[in-house]
Amino acid sequence: MGSLSFRKTLAGYLRTVRAVNCEPEQLMIVSGSQQALEVSARVLFDPGSRVWIEEPSYRLARHVLLGAGCRLVPVPVDQEGLNISAGIKAFHRARGAIVSPSHQFPLGSIMTIARRHQLLEWADHVGSWIIEDDYDSEYRYRAMPVPSLQGMDSHAGVVYIGTFSKTLFPSLRVGYIVIPKDLIDRFVAIRHAMDLFPSQLYQDVLAEFIEAGHYARHVRRTKLLYQERRDILVDSINKEFGGGLEILGTEAGLHLTLKVPQQESDHEIALRAAKQRLWLYPLSSSYFGSPQLQGLILGFGNAPEKDIPGAVERLKRLLSPSRL
Amino acid sequence: MGSLSFRKTLAGYLRTVRAVNCEPEQLMIVSGSQQALEVSARVLFDPGSRVWIEEPSYRLARHVLLGAGCRLVPVPVDQEGLNISAGIKAFHRARGAIVSPSHQFPLGSIMTIARRHQLLEWADHVGSWIIEDDYDSEYRYRAMPVPSLQGMDSHAGVVYIGTFSKTLFPSLRVGYIVIPKDLIDRFVAIRHAMDLFPSQLYQDVLAEFIEAGHYARHVRRTKLLYQERRDILVDSINKEFGGGLEILGTEAGLHLTLKVPQQESDHEIALRAAKQRLWLYPLSSSYFGSPQLQGLILGFGNAPEKDIPGAVERLKRLLSPSRL
Repeated sequence: MGSLSFRKTLAGYLRTVRAVNCEPEQLMIVSGSQQALEVSARVLFDPGSRVWIEEPSYRLARHVLLGAGCRLVPVPVDQEGLNISAGIKAFHRARGAIVSPSHQFPLGSIMTIARRHQLLEWADHVGSWIIEDDYDSEYRYRAMPVPSLQGMDSHAGVVYIGTFSKTLFPSLRVGYIVIPKDLIDRFVAIRHAMDLFPSQLYQDVLAEFIEAGHYARHVRRTKLLYQERRDILVDSINKEFGGGLEILGTEAGLHLTLKVPQQESDHEIALRAAKQRLWLYPLSSSYFGSPQLQGLILGFGNAPEKDIPGAVERLKRLLSPSRL
Repeated sequence: MGSLSFRKTLAGYLRTVRAVNCEPEQLMIVSGSQQALEVSARVLFDPGSRVWIEEPSYRLARHVLLGAGCRLVPVPVDQEGLNISAGIKAFHRARGAIVSPSHQFPLGSIMTIARRHQLLEWADHVGSWIIEDDYDSEYRYRAMPVPSLQGMDSHAGVVYIGTFSKTLFPSLRVGYIVIPKDLIDRFVAIRHAMDLFPSQLYQDVLAEFIEAGHYARHVRRTKLLYQERRDILVDSINKEFGGGLEILGTEAGLHLTLKVPQQESDHEIALRAAKQRLWLYPLSSSYFGSPQLQGLILGFGNAPEKDIPGAVERLKRLLSPSRL
């Protein structure tokens, strides 16, 4: 499961900051969100299990489920988050649902309280598992923090997944799972067969880093930094495009999504952009079924403030190649 | 796959020290032998695949295969290693075989050159994959090093697995897979869905540690240390039991196996021993089928020299409780 002292520290942090309902013995330390999903899928689902996924969603989460033999049920996402009614219509008795309610990937919506209650009620009613992927909720820029879905659930039906990849750095490879108490043994068995246990040194260092308050300070500091980068990016987009292109998901996280006209191919734009060393991610790849939107996922976490306006200017030229 | 500079260093080391036939691009860094087995099993086998396992064998390797839905074919091990003829008789067209030829776990035999050729010929003939688990071959005490099976193979049918858990420490969680060139893409796809990539910092440190010669010096130094511990353990056993109990697998590694009379239960001895803070591992747990031998697996890597004679003396009393 990981070092007990680290898990104690982390449990305290999650209770305070994310309103996660957890004891240290429910925390399993893993190598990141991806392993967290992998272990969870293998415990909760069987080959053939139907699982709701957000449409669009994080591509690598789909890979895990497909690898575990699940049958994916894409459920549309709108500005209020996952459309539960559409999910119930698509496949009512699904075995589970994977959601990112704090900041949906890639559209960026924050799931409303009403939708959260609806999702939890559905899961309780049909006996489904919810996997809550809370990959970047530390970075919320305006609204008050929304408590985790796990903390709102009273039926121990939510598996909560978090990572240090966004707040610290991805090559650290440290993430965690908050496991419902009656599933701990099954998670341990599957994980033990997979890679035994997590590396020790990082856990010791992180425990000290959090305990001493450095982590909270680091998150506060980087939040201001990322907020500034987001503001510059939004301003630059509005300046270049005169508000002609819709921007989605600016209230949290380290990316936003820029809708492009349906006649454009986001894949082609991304390829043209890559030739100019502009790294964009096409929105259409996030769809399991046929893409409903064309758009560009723009990460700003790693973009120096001074480079952003020029990058958006170059992007504008890419979107309208006829003007070149 | 891991850091390229680490993989270059490691490939050079494996070519020189283990006669492994590998280029850096064939090396995938993983979190240890267990993840190496997990990734390999998922790439090479399907649910229902028949796979030869050593009987007795490493219990956690069996867990990986069972988790991947494989059907295990136990193949007996003798003093020359895996009995290939018995395997062919049991299930000729198996999809693969997992072996520990450098130092069989738990019986400690070193696979003879004749058996190695026989195994490679069988695998080539039926198109099977061999997974070579080379978990502790750095510690060989008498005989000349035997080259790896992978290095003897001319048909790219061997997946070679190694780890730093024995030579450095298990909580480091660093191991590696040498992948046949035409399977690299499949290994990458499976591993990427599992946990993306390995942590960076340890790789950088290890690359420097190996390049500067510290690792080779460390292995030489610890080999002398473990050899001394093994000698004291063997002497103490012979002194206490007057040669009455057979000792298996003393030529390599960090454990030996002590056969106990068939009327004794190695599980019960291990339980009685644990109450006296003597940690033994019962041999019978290593069998997939019904145990052919009762015995005790004694690890000596972590036993201070001065404690060994007293521990063996206590063990003797446990083996003969009527005399207490």
